[in-house]
Amino acid sequence: MFSLIAAITVTDSIRPFSLFQLYTHRVAVRAKMNKNSSNIMALVPKTSNKRETVCIFGTGDFGRALGHKLIQSGYPVVFGSRSPWPSSLIPKDAEVLSHAEAAQKAAIIIIAIQRQHYDFLASLEETLHGKVLVDISNNLKINQYPESNAKYLAQLVPSARVVKAFNTVSAWALQSGTLDASRQVFVCGDDTEAKQMVIDIVRAVGLTPLDQGSLLAAREIENYPLQLFPMWKIPIFLSLGLTAFFFFYCLVRDVIYPCVYENKDYSFFLAISIPNRISPIMALVLLALVYLPGVLAAIIQLYRGTKYSRFPDWLDKWMLCRKQLGLVALPFASLHVIYTLVMPIRYYVRWRIEDRTISQALNNKTAPFDNTNGWLSDSYLALGILGFFLFVLLGITSLPSVSNNVNWREFRFVQSKLGYLTLILCTAHTLVYGGNRFLSPSSYRWYLPNAYMLSLIIPCIVLVVKFVLILPCLDKQLTRIRQGWERNPQYSEQSNYIINKSAV
Amino acid sequence: MFSLIAAITVTDSIRPFSLFQLYTHRVAVRAKMNKNSSNIMALVPKTSNKRETVCIFGTGDFGRALGHKLIQSGYPVVFGSRSPWPSSLIPKDAEVLSHAEAAQKAAIIIIAIQRQHYDFLASLEETLHGKVLVDISNNLKINQYPESNAKYLAQLVPSARVVKAFNTVSAWALQSGTLDASRQVFVCGDDTEAKQMVIDIVRAVGLTPLDQGSLLAAREIENYPLQLFPMWKIPIFLSLGLTAFFFFYCLVRDVIYPCVYENKDYSFFLAISIPNRISPIMALVLLALVYLPGVLAAIIQLYRGTKYSRFPDWLDKWMLCRKQLGLVALPFASLHVIYTLVMPIRYYVRWRIEDRTISQALNNKTAPFDNTNGWLSDSYLALGILGFFLFVLLGITSLPSVSNNVNWREFRFVQSKLGYLTLILCTAHTLVYGGNRFLSPSSYRWYLPNAYMLSLIIPCIVLVVKFVLILPCLDKQLTRIRQGWERNPQYSEQSNYIINKSAV
Amino acid sequence: MFSLIAAITVTDSIRPFSLFQLYTHRVAVRAKMNKNSSNIMALVPKTSNKRETVCIFGTGDFGRALGHKLIQSGYPVVFGSRSPWPSSLIPKDAEVLSHAEAAQKAAIIIIAIQRQHYDFLASLEETLHGKVLVDISNNLKINQYPESNAKYLAQLVPSARVVKAFNTVSAWALQSGTLDASRQVFVCGDDTEAKQMVIDIVRAVGLTPLDQGSLLAAREIENYPLQLFPMWKIPIFLSLGLTAFFFFYCLVRDVIYPCVYENKDYSFFLAISIPNRISPIMALVLLALVYLPGVLAAIIQLYRGTKYSRFPDWLDKWMLCRKQLGLVALPFASLHVIYTLVMPIRYYVRWRIEDRTISQALNNKTAPFDNTNGWLSDSYLALGILGFFLFVLLGITSLPSVSNNVNWREFRFVQSKLGYLTLILCTAHTLVYGGNRFLSPSSYRWYLPNAYMLSLIIPCIVLVVKFVLILPCLDKQLTRIRQGWERNPQYSEQSNYIINKSAV
Repeated sequence: MFSLIAAITVTDSIRPFSLFQLYTHRVAVRAKMNKNSSNIMALVPKTSNKRETVCIFGTGDFGRALGHKLIQSGYPVVFGSRSPWPSSLIPKDAEVLSHAEAAQKAAIIIIAIQRQHYDFLASLEETLHGKVLVDISNNLKINQYPESNAKYLAQLVPSARVVKAFNTVSAWALQSGTLDASRQVFVCGDDTEAKQMVIDIVRAVGLTPLDQGSLLAAREIENYPLQLFPMWKIPIFLSLGLTAFFFFYCLVRDVIYPCVYENKDYSFFLAISIPNRISPIMALVLLALVYLPGVLAAIIQLYRGTKYSRFPDWLDKWMLCRKQLGLVALPFASLHVIYTLVMPIRYYVRWRIEDRTISQALNNKTAPFDNTNGWLSDSYLALGILGFFLFVLLGITSLPSVSNNVNWREFRFVQSKLGYLTLILCTAHTLVYGGNRFLSPSSYRWYLPNAYMLSLIIPCIVLVVKFVLILPCLDKQLTRIRQGWERNPQYSEQSNYIINKSAV
Repeated sequence: MFSLIAAITVTDSIRPFSLFQLYTHRVAVRAKMNKNSSNIMALVPKTSNKRETVCIFGTGDFGRALGHKLIQSGYPVVFGSRSPWPSSLIPKDAEVLSHAEAAQKAAIIIIAIQRQHYDFLASLEETLHGKVLVDISNNLKINQYPESNAKYLAQLVPSARVVKAFNTVSAWALQSGTLDASRQVFVCGDDTEAKQMVIDIVRAVGLTPLDQGSLLAAREIENYPLQLFPMWKIPIFLSLGLTAFFFFYCLVRDVIYPCVYENKDYSFFLAISIPNRISPIMALVLLALVYLPGVLAAIIQLYRGTKYSRFPDWLDKWMLCRKQLGLVALPFASLHVIYTLVMPIRYYVRWRIEDRTISQALNNKTAPFDNTNGWLSDSYLALGILGFFLFVLLGITSLPSVSNNVNWREFRFVQSKLGYLTLILCTAHTLVYGGNRFLSPSSYRWYLPNAYMLSLIIPCIVLVVKFVLILPCLDKQLTRIRQGWERNPQYSEQSNYIINKSAV
Repeated sequence: MFSLIAAITVTDSIRPFSLFQLYTHRVAVRAKMNKNSSNIMALVPKTSNKRETVCIFGTGDFGRALGHKLIQSGYPVVFGSRSPWPSSLIPKDAEVLSHAEAAQKAAIIIIAIQRQHYDFLASLEETLHGKVLVDISNNLKINQYPESNAKYLAQLVPSARVVKAFNTVSAWALQSGTLDASRQVFVCGDDTEAKQMVIDIVRAVGLTPLDQGSLLAAREIENYPLQLFPMWKIPIFLSLGLTAFFFFYCLVRDVIYPCVYENKDYSFFLAISIPNRISPIMALVLLALVYLPGVLAAIIQLYRGTKYSRFPDWLDKWMLCRKQLGLVALPFASLHVIYTLVMPIRYYVRWRIEDRTISQALNNKTAPFDNTNGWLSDSYLALGILGFFLFVLLGITSLPSVSNNVNWREFRFVQSKLGYLTLILCTAHTLVYGGNRFLSPSSYRWYLPNAYMLSLIIPCIVLVVKFVLILPCLDKQLTRIRQGWERNPQYSEQSNYIINKSAV
């Protein structure tokens, strides 16, 4: 959970592994402690070694870390350096030569140098002719340079075969057994053979290679480690905006209004009461927003009578961040649960209860038990509990390791059936909570309805439309459309194909 | 969590990816947004390409999706179609030819056509001679046809080498980077060489091939995507049955009885009170049922004096769904926790407390603090909390990604030691809850004991028997039996083997 | 969650799979039930089989299980046994011969025999010449023998090429589809070619090979399955020690003191009150201990003015178990939450509230609402809730499957930024809880301060120092140091390298 924090305050132009150094030397210790570490095993196989030599340009942290790992996996490693004399820092089993000499010894050369130092490679042009150059560099900013580092390298040494790889791995991950950081290594390059050679190395080192196609992909691959939750931007900003809105809305209704009219100081509501109003609203709205695009898509498809035409861009984007929307909604729901459960402990709540009890006692009268209230409060809580319960279930099934172990049909079942059931339960929970307060004028202050009423709008729309869509007549047509049928075929080829197939 | 819902309402005879279409064209957008997507990289490597051409029959959604992905990974792709003219739908880098022409160009032919259209392949017999045919089709129902689609294909084109693969992947998964659905691709076929070729392709596309043996496995593989939590059927139905039983049991005792005799309306108990009686009972019973078969197995082995004989079928089945039983018990426990924590917020509970307080106040007397009650209520809660706590721990360690990172001994420790500790704590929790109520006649209505008393039967049996089994005398013998020792050897070979080994 | 419990009571000198036997025969049943099982598919491919024969010495449980799996994957399997006649136990598709005959038939020989029976292999010396011997054995104790079993085997048969593998897998895992136990297979050996052959087999069987280098690694690999959470020892013992200390501390203050002076019996505090004092303290202290070493490391680096020198051993060890420290802190936090939420249900709490209410009622006076208390109690709860919330978030992101899907920068963001925010919130939570009680003498009994005051020491230190460290002046220098800059260079080579590079 915290094992990378040492490396956290690091800022390094290749990648953060400046703490790697202090780990190189105490390998044995670590190996004993860390069952994932395979460092103790850093030894050259003694007998005939079939694996071809790998050359590494640059003796920086990552160069050494990778060299270390390659030697473990039985690759002879030779370092190319401006200062070709061995040092305590370099794995003792590795040779250190000048760039030129080192390059001659291997077919694969890993360039562990920062982009700004590449240019000297041009001078090695003929030495590097036909060699596989592995570009592992990263930048400090997204799209920092006009062309990707790999592309730049390929232009510098046109006669070499450039492959992009390893930039997503950290020296730390190489050291500590890659448990805590990602194991994926994106590989791309124009020469398939060269790419295959690199992929084999990646696999031998115990990482998971992912072929990303031609060198044009390098740009994406170089940007990848610099991204900060790209898929999460929209959902998070959206929820922040909504939260702010509802916060001020509740502030006005629940703090300012009583302060003005009843001259009461409810400022302490800011701590729990108001957050506990906002969180359920956010959870419900976001959950509804997860299912809205699916419904819209269905309507559009029905209207157009075909699935072979593009959706508006916004809808497409929306559909792609539904998972994130859902996962952002879950924390809000959880907060709502804790805030609610914590109520009886709050001084304010306790005081109010005591106060009421005492006043009743003093007036010698006891309120009779009201069965309707019993029903309302209990069913309202029950609905909320079940809704939250399913919500958590959805969250668990969305864990990569879980969703990898269910088949498509099971995934669909959980995400659609249970998903809609969750939405229904949560909406009902809110409706029952509202109970008969909807109409009572007291719940309108400055003509502002209670916040939870606003939160009901979207969910209700989604549920109603969805209900209409699953009416047999519409559902049947939608299914046909999604199986490829078109009301007025536009793509002759497509329709032909279908006719032919059915004609067979 | 929700990213596949778009594809959810889809019903497609090959597999659900009808929404794939609307994704083909907006690749760039998506790639920017979806860090797992590798679509932007869909480009043919420019230079010498060592990979051999792959042919795809059928230009349907999945055919195109797979073609797309193959091109990315550097495979030249040629489509075989009845309508051999290019279309906006087909990846522009791919050729489209007639089936016969296309087949000649490749050694591997992926059949992306539905089974009912296979027959025309028979006419291509000689073209397909010796080719590797990859059957990717699925059915709509389990065991829909007498023989598996792959088998059927092999019979149609006996001279070809048929391999089953890719049927568990969805076009969506291929598109969106296979994060949300399973990465596993089951592969089977009679020709190992052909199978290996397909396995290489699967790996090149970034998926995880799993060799399942000969083509006879195709049946299982084709049924796999149609299964809906097969392992979960028994546990879920069992728990549903038990839940129903206990529901009516409590209904009679807690609602009908008072309604009849005391003429009180406790109907609102249906919302929370009764669920909160059932859920802990279910959790405890199911948890006990997880450990019961292990105990039975031990007894049988002790009785038979050997481990080399089969268990009764029901016991075998039971043992295989213990994990699921446990995972079904956990939600019940969680529900019990929330239901309990929610109590002080319930109108009914608040009213009762107020009422008691007031009446005491009016009668001018205060109940003195009873230390025993203090002990009972606190220890009862503490036991429950710790029990639930360990239960959740068991749940977490059962997450695939976690259990993959512990070794066998650690897994045993958690699942057995902690598992039994959980059972003990939960049983004690229930016993203390019962406290001295066991004997008070008031807790018997219509001669029905409190429901939680019934729930104690199985756990107590399991714990007692287990306790007996770990007595040194029995434990030692059991261990010997499980190490292969037999009281009265039946399998000469086996015993010989042991003798010989010890004789060495 | 529980699927391995059957195998749990097993003690087997090779590995626990004594229940494997009862599974061999009911493959079909299981396959139907267990979607991960691939047993039904245990059939020899019929046509030309390119895969080379594998020989297995020993027909014990694991030998048979592995043979079974190999046959599935299309390998012809021949068993070498002292009793070379077929038996119902051995997969019917496999041959059973004498050791010598069997060895001649295959290039790879898997030694499924216990170490103490190895010696007879010496007699087969010339037969085994140049063969690949796969040692799969485990021991009963860590470092049981002077040399690893694989080493011992290599000494017995010097002319053979020994590879260590498969010892981390259980027969159970091989049978049941390896879902519940680890898929990783550590492989090591001196001959790379031989190692590659074994790695291919491992992959073919559907497991994940991890190359660990030369045969010297065998020792570690053989110890691995015997380890019991090695990384967790320190954190767990540490927390146990602290827990014990704080337990007695609270015992004295909250139970013994009032018993002595006020002669009150608060013994029932042992059940919940005291645990609920300890758990938050432990959570806070452990969380602080996670961040302390990072801060110390920074100070040392600043002081030394270089990153190229080792940290003291204890600091190094400490840094390596931070993740575990954090994961141990989380349960304490969760316990604190449940203990707190359960308060209003406790008889003691209810009684106290009732009592106060009644006495107020009897005295005809009601306490007025105190706004400050409202603020204190609410903000204290709010801080706690948010702190716990982020804490859980950290826990979730530390799940392997999740952390594998975030890139380095995202991981850093969560673990560092959110981590420190969590620490701040939790510390604030405790401070506000203390409120104005810090100075009131009543909170000092026998001159002992309240326990939570002690718990604040470390967190406050960490936060203050951290705050100092992020002051621009220090931060800038630290960053430079971590990028490789040295105040007074010691490693000429290193500095040269930097100079040269910048000189380029």
